[in-house]
Parts: sequence; C-alpha cells; structure tokens
Amino acid sequence: MGTEIRTAAGYQSALELALEELRAFLGSRATAGEAARHHHSHGESTHPPALPDLVCFPQTTSEVSQIMQVSARHGLPVVPFGAGTSLEGHVNALRGGISLDMRQMNRVLRVSVEDMDATVEAGISRLQLAKALENTGLMFSVDPGADATIGGMASTRASGTMAVRYGTMRENVLGLTVVLADGRIIHTGTRARKSSAGYDLTRLFVGAEGTLGVMTELTVRLHPLPEAVGVAVSAFASVEGAVRTVIEAIQLGLSPARIEFMDEAQVDAVNRYSRLELAVKPTLLFEFHGISEASVEETARLAEQLAAEHGGLGFNWETTPAGRERLWKARHDVYYASRALLPGSETLTTDVCVPISRMAECIVATRADLDALSFPATIVGHVGDGNFHVLCMLAPEQAAEAASFAARLVERALAMGGTCTGEHGVGYGKKKYLKSEHGEALEVMRMLKLALDPENRMNPGKIVDVD
Amino acid sequence: MGTEIRTAAGYQSALELALEELRAFLGSRATAGEAARHHHSHGESTHPPALPDLVCFPQTTSEVSQIMQVSARHGLPVVPFGAGTSLEGHVNALRGGISLDMRQMNRVLRVSVEDMDATVEAGISRLQLAKALENTGLMFSVDPGADATIGGMASTRASGTMAVRYGTMRENVLGLTVVLADGRIIHTGTRARKSSAGYDLTRLFVGAEGTLGVMTELTVRLHPLPEAVGVAVSAFASVEGAVRTVIEAIQLGLSPARIEFMDEAQVDAVNRYSRLELAVKPTLLFEFHGISEASVEETARLAEQLAAEHGGLGFNWETTPAGRERLWKARHDVYYASRALLPGSETLTTDVCVPISRMAECIVATRADLDALSFPATIVGHVGDGNFHVLCMLAPEQAAEAASFAARLVERALAMGGTCTGEHGVGYGKKKYLKSEHGEALEVMRMLKLALDPENRMNPGKIVDVD
Repeated sequence: MGTEIRTAAGYQSALELALEELRAFLGSRATAGEAARHHHSHGESTHPPALPDLVCFPQTTSEVSQIMQVSARHGLPVVPFGAGTSLEGHVNALRGGISLDMRQMNRVLRVSVEDMDATVEAGISRLQLAKALENTGLMFSVDPGADATIGGMASTRASGTMAVRYGTMRENVLGLTVVLADGRIIHTGTRARKSSAGYDLTRLFVGAEGTLGVMTELTVRLHPLPEAVGVAVSAFASVEGAVRTVIEAIQLGLSPARIEFMDEAQVDAVNRYSRLELAVKPTLLFEFHGISEASVEETARLAEQLAAEHGGLGFNWETTPAGRERLWKARHDVYYASRALLPGSETLTTDVCVPISRMAECIVATRADLDALSFPATIVGHVGDGNFHVLCMLAPEQAAEAASFAARLVERALAMGGTCTGEHGVGYGKKKYLKSEHGEALEVMRMLKLALDPENRMNPGKIVDVD
Repeated sequence: MGTEIRTAAGYQSALELALEELRAFLGSRATAGEAARHHHSHGESTHPPALPDLVCFPQTTSEVSQIMQVSARHGLPVVPFGAGTSLEGHVNALRGGISLDMRQMNRVLRVSVEDMDATVEAGISRLQLAKALENTGLMFSVDPGADATIGGMASTRASGTMAVRYGTMRENVLGLTVVLADGRIIHTGTRARKSSAGYDLTRLFVGAEGTLGVMTELTVRLHPLPEAVGVAVSAFASVEGAVRTVIEAIQLGLSPARIEFMDEAQVDAVNRYSRLELAVKPTLLFEFHGISEASVEETARLAEQLAAEHGGLGFNWETTPAGRERLWKARHDVYYASRALLPGSETLTTDVCVPISRMAECIVATRADLDALSFPATIVGHVGDGNFHVLCMLAPEQAAEAASFAARLVERALAMGGTCTGEHGVGYGKKKYLKSEHGEALEVMRMLKLALDPENRMNPGKIVDVD
C-alpha cells in the first residue's frame, strides 16, 4: 500500500486477481466466502471485528511464501491467524486483505529427547503438542489459559502459570522459520542452546504479533516432566501477606513451578463454578516440582512455614493426583467461573505486570478501584512474575466504564515501573499505551517495522503505526 | 561516512574539530594521546590491533549522547570499549574514529532485594558488581572467565559456567538504556519480569556488540545465593560417557548449577599449573545448588549413580569450601594453565556450541583433528549447554595452521546444527562464518543495522557489513 492511493474498484480488481492466483496453488484452500471471512474477523476479545477479504489455509512454508508473494504483487495486507483466542484484537483484519489461517500446519516435525527440543509447525496447538510428547518424559511448559497455537503463543510472547520457573515463550523458542513480507524464507537461531553469532532475530519475531513476518516453524525447548509434584492451596488474611510469602519463597530458592493468586471475588466465583469450598480470602495456589517426593516435601514445608509467618490461614495439601487436577482445572476455568457471575455478559479481560515489590500495592489499589464500579470483576494472577489479570463482566452499557478502568489500571502499572501487558500482547487494544510505556523507544520499533515491512502489509495497525 | 568520500586532510580536520568539541565538555577525558589509542586498539585476541583516533571516557549517559552527537556531526565511527577482554576483535577500531571507554561509568544505581534485580552502569565489571552485592543474599550469575564489564558481557551475549542453570546474558538482562547513533537516548524493557508490550528491543541490543547503539545502563536479574552447595569431580573412561552422564542428569531434572568438561590435555595442563592431581582423563566438574545440605546430597548421589553407569572413574566430593574454591579457581585458570604449556606463545581461543546430542561426537572429532597438528591445544567446555572452547598455543609460524583448524571446527559445528560461537561473539574474527550459519537471515541483520545506523558509524566492520 505505502503512500499509493487506490480506488475501491482498483482494490476489488486486485483482490480478484489475487484470489485467482492463490486458487492456482491452494485450490479451495483460498476463499472469499462469507463464513470464513466472519470466522477470521476477530479473536476472543470485545474489540470490534474486522473482516479480511480473503482467507487462505496454507499447508507448507513454501505455500506461505507463495501467498506472501501474491500479496506483495497486489498490495494486500496479510494477517496471520492461529486458534483465534487472542484478547487484544491481534487477528482482526483492520485493513482487510488476507487472513492466513495456520491451523493446517500442525505437524510435529521432530522431537529430540536428548536435546530436549522439538520442531513444530506454527499452527499446532499446545494440547496437540502435549499429546505428541506423551511417553517422551518431556513437556512443553508454556500454558496460557486457551488452547492457542504455538505460533500464536510465540507471536504474543505468551507465558501462563509455569513461567515463574520455566520461562515464557521468549525463553522457550530456540529458533524459527519465518516468511518475510516479500515471500523470502529465513531461519533464525540454531539447535544449539545458546549462541553469540549476531543479532537475536528469534527474539525479534517472538512478540512481534505477525507485524514483521509470518512464523511457519518453531524449534521449542522442552523440559523434563518432574519426578514428583506437590500442590497446596492457602488462604491469607491479606493480599500483602500472600505476596510477601511469594517474594520470600523465591528469595529462598524454593523455585516454585507455579504460584497463582486469586482475590476474594475470584475465589468466590471459583467455588460456585467448580464446586470447591475454598475460604473466600486472598488465596495462593502452589505447585512444586522435584526429583523425589522427599525433595518436594522439604520444599513445600519451607513454603508452609513462610505462609504461616505471613498470615496464612492453613496450608492444604492436595496429595492425590485427582485432587491436584481438580484444583488446577478450577484455576484454568477462572474465565468461565467469572463469566458465570453474570451470565450472558461481555467480558473484558486485561493484564498488567509490575515489579513484584509493588504487586500487593497494585492489586489492593486495583481492587479498591473495582469496588467503586458498577460491574462484577475478579483478579487472578501469576504472582511469581508480578503479572495479574482482571476480568470484568459487563452489560453493554458498562463498556465505557470498563474502558476507563482498564486505562487507569495500565497507568497504575506503568507508574510502578511495570508494563501495560504481561502476556496478552498489544494487538490494537493496547497500542495507545505504548508511547507512555516506551517513550522514544517506540520510534525504534517503528524503524524496525519500516525496515522489514516497508509497505506495512504485515498485520497492519497492530503494535506500531507507520503510516 | 555513508557513500561520501573524504580526503585524508578532510578527515584530519574533522578529527581536530571533533576533539575540540569533545574537550569542551569532557576536558582531559577526551584525548588523542598515543598511549590511550594503543591501549584501545585491541582486546585479548590475536587479531591485528587497529587504533582509534580519539579516546573518550564518559561518566554519564548524557555525555555519551553528546559524544554521539559530535561523532554524527563529523562522520566519525564510535567503538564502545569495556574491559578489553574480548576475543574476536570486537573493540579494535577498524576504521579509526572514537573509542568510547566505558570504565568510568561503573556505579551501581540501585539494587532491589525483593525484585532480585539491579540497575548498573555499563562499565562496571562483574567482580565490582559481585562486591556490591555482598550481604544482599543475591548474586549475578553470569561469569565469563575474564573480569569483563557488564555492558561488554551483554554486548557479546556472554554466558560462562552457570548458564546451564541460570541462563546467559540474554536471560539476565531485563532492560537497557541505549544511546543511538544520532545521540538519542532510549530505554528498553521495564522492571516487570516479563512483558508482551511490543518488540523485544532489549534482546536486539544484547549480542549486537555495539553495532546498533551504546548501552549505558543495564537492569540485570539477580539470583538468590544457594543455601547449600555441593561440588564434585569425576574422571571418565571416555568423552561419550561424560557427555551421556550430563544428558541424563539434565533429563532427570538434577538442574546442575555448573557442569564443566575438560579433556585430557586440559586436565594435564591444570594439574601442572594449579598443582592438582586429577586423573588425566576426560573429566567433569559438577556443582549443585540446593535449599539444604540434604537436598544437595540427594541430587549429587543421583549424579554419582549416573556417572558410575557411564564409565565414571570415581566421584570425588569437595566437602570443604577451600577445596571447592581450589577446584573452581583451577577451572577458571585454564587459560593461564594452557598458556603455560608453551610459555611465551600466542593463544588462539575459539568456541563453538552444538546440540548436546552431538557434543561427544564433536569433541572427539575435534580432538582427533588437533592431535594431527603441530601445536599443543586443550578443550574445555560448558558441557551442559553444548558449548566448548579450544585453546591453541602457537609459535608465530603456526598461525595459519591454527586458522584452518578454527575454520574446520566451525564447519563441523555448523554441520551438526550448531553455531560458530556460543559465547565469545562475532567481532570481526567470525564475521566470515555468518553467511553459512544464517543464510538469508544475515540479510535481515543487515537491514536492521541499516535501519538503526544508516551511516554505519557504530562499531563498523563488526557482525555485518553494510557498505
């Protein structure tokens, strides 16, 4: 597109030509059908949908390259689409063009048990990958709530409950195959665990939300399944006590696999939805991984002591696998549990991340803010990382009230040295906050975008504006 | 510079003007003195030195910005200089210009025990930082052999012996203050542990070797000092057995803090230099960190069993702090121990990194290659990462023989899916290998360099050529 102005008729005829060229190698896997276009107009957020003009379903990197070449010839935007679970409008086709549905690229290309890594196509989902890893003794550790695709997770730099121990997508992607805006195919990284050989292109594409290129294959790091697992839940007299316990557990080197926080409203919602009987108090869920039952027990006893010192109201061990699973299922279902507070409501889900030293203060201030508002809302967080989510259940007329709340939340997080999103990404929902967060560095992002996508055809309108 | 051709007289007069402008705010901290220029013409490698025309010693980010503005006005290259310990010619001023000595920017700006992070100026060395962290219960984990500056370590994406557990500079830098080629100051990252808010500029500058901008401040991650430490040394009947032990230790989740490998030649050199009596066999040094003596003991016993299963010739525990220190000092002194094999020799030190599944094969083939050559050489490695070093002790006439060996080593590593450098960086010594390693992705690096430094004044001639 660039600076060229195109008439509606010109654009229409470019689309028709493009579709004909795409059909020549994709057949029915290129379509302008209404249903496909609607399905690819949005993720799971409340951001207004935006329809692509065409939808393609490539099956190989080479097909993605050909699609990018067609899009380049006809000046069409391209929006990569995974499982459609994104929360900030990442996949909405703001300027039309081609939605690139990656779900047919879902193969596991190789797994190495010795190197503890795997190469997968971008459209595989995390549960599909988990299934493929059964019986290897290894796991892929990044677990956002949704069954997102690995490519989508890399593109938003997703993390989830185990990031506190095993890292986010930033740490768990070792290398990529990327198709650039002009169709060129590049490979970033190597299969070596580390390298000092030049610019870190892998980390540049991770989190770029498809605005710099399309990931088609990823080499990801795997972790050994723990020999022993311990899970506990503890209510606390105060948010401060819960966060203090987390800080000291990390300082002591207890290296929890998960430490999740739920506020009282969230606990209440979970009790109702998942039929649990947790005390309606600020609550922590702990999981410890170890090389033996004894080592997990030792770690957990130390955590229990810390909790007791900081107003913990009893440390309840889940000793059976079924009990553990019930608890984590309840945690993973918080989205549905919260929605059930106001059936039929729209949900605004937002996340911020702050230095852990400021986390209690941030949560308490956010809860006080919420308590003065007219809609129900819950707080749940990956407290070991300083990352928390707010879910707001809204009637249509409350959207504006929720939007101002979300803006205040970001402002509060930034004032504390945090970030406007810990794991959901920017999309177009949070683009407006990047200037306050990054200042002049946003201009550097713009320079990078222009360097790699001078025509602004790669998922335009997301992260940075260049026109 | 760009495409402009400048006469020698024109360049000389630009230098004189620049020096005058620099003196106006730096006083005697800007110099064209011979001694300073010589000192800043090289690191610790055998690459031919190249003198800068001027040397500046800034004390603040603002002074660095002013220096960059002067350099921009007069078209002068700028080469950041830390402790001068680099091994691939990173700091050699290939095109003259200004050497930017960062050592006077060596303050610790803040430490947060709760957040386990610190902000430091780029010129602080790792031992200076270690000293500043005494009594905090925290450590900075990245430990290359030399007492490099934190800025230099970030710029080469350094790692060292503890990367297998605590990560490299890639994982341990949370945010940066960077001065761009035109003098603009940007801040990357936040103090939150993770973020999905836009492109990962921090990781773009980490490993860029000063070719995209000058780091002036870094926020780094700290780790809790372990409650208990266990150290052991074990000789093995074969390299394969040693590497197999490492692979299985990692798969079992033993999460060693260090696993270092020394080949027979290295053990022999260490025995002589550090007066040890290790068996002259392929050898592993282990270190385990844990929350108690009991947990370290449990972990170490499992490692001992694994070693016994794979041809380990006895697992010797260092139970006293003095014994542990003696062993690690010997490991850190391998460079001097190897040089003592041929006093007065030049040393070529090179490193590669391969997938761990290929490591034994790569080391064995490399040893066989070395055994056919005319100079003594030792192999030592961070085996948990698949990273190893070769030190070649050379008489002047053996330089060409060593250079072809080094090229074969890289070729071997790349053929195994590895990288031409695991932690030393590219500088200009390894630039020639980047095309085989990265293919078309090297062109993307070039595009990024041009976007951020269109005049190619930031450490020109390193990593990528753009003119």
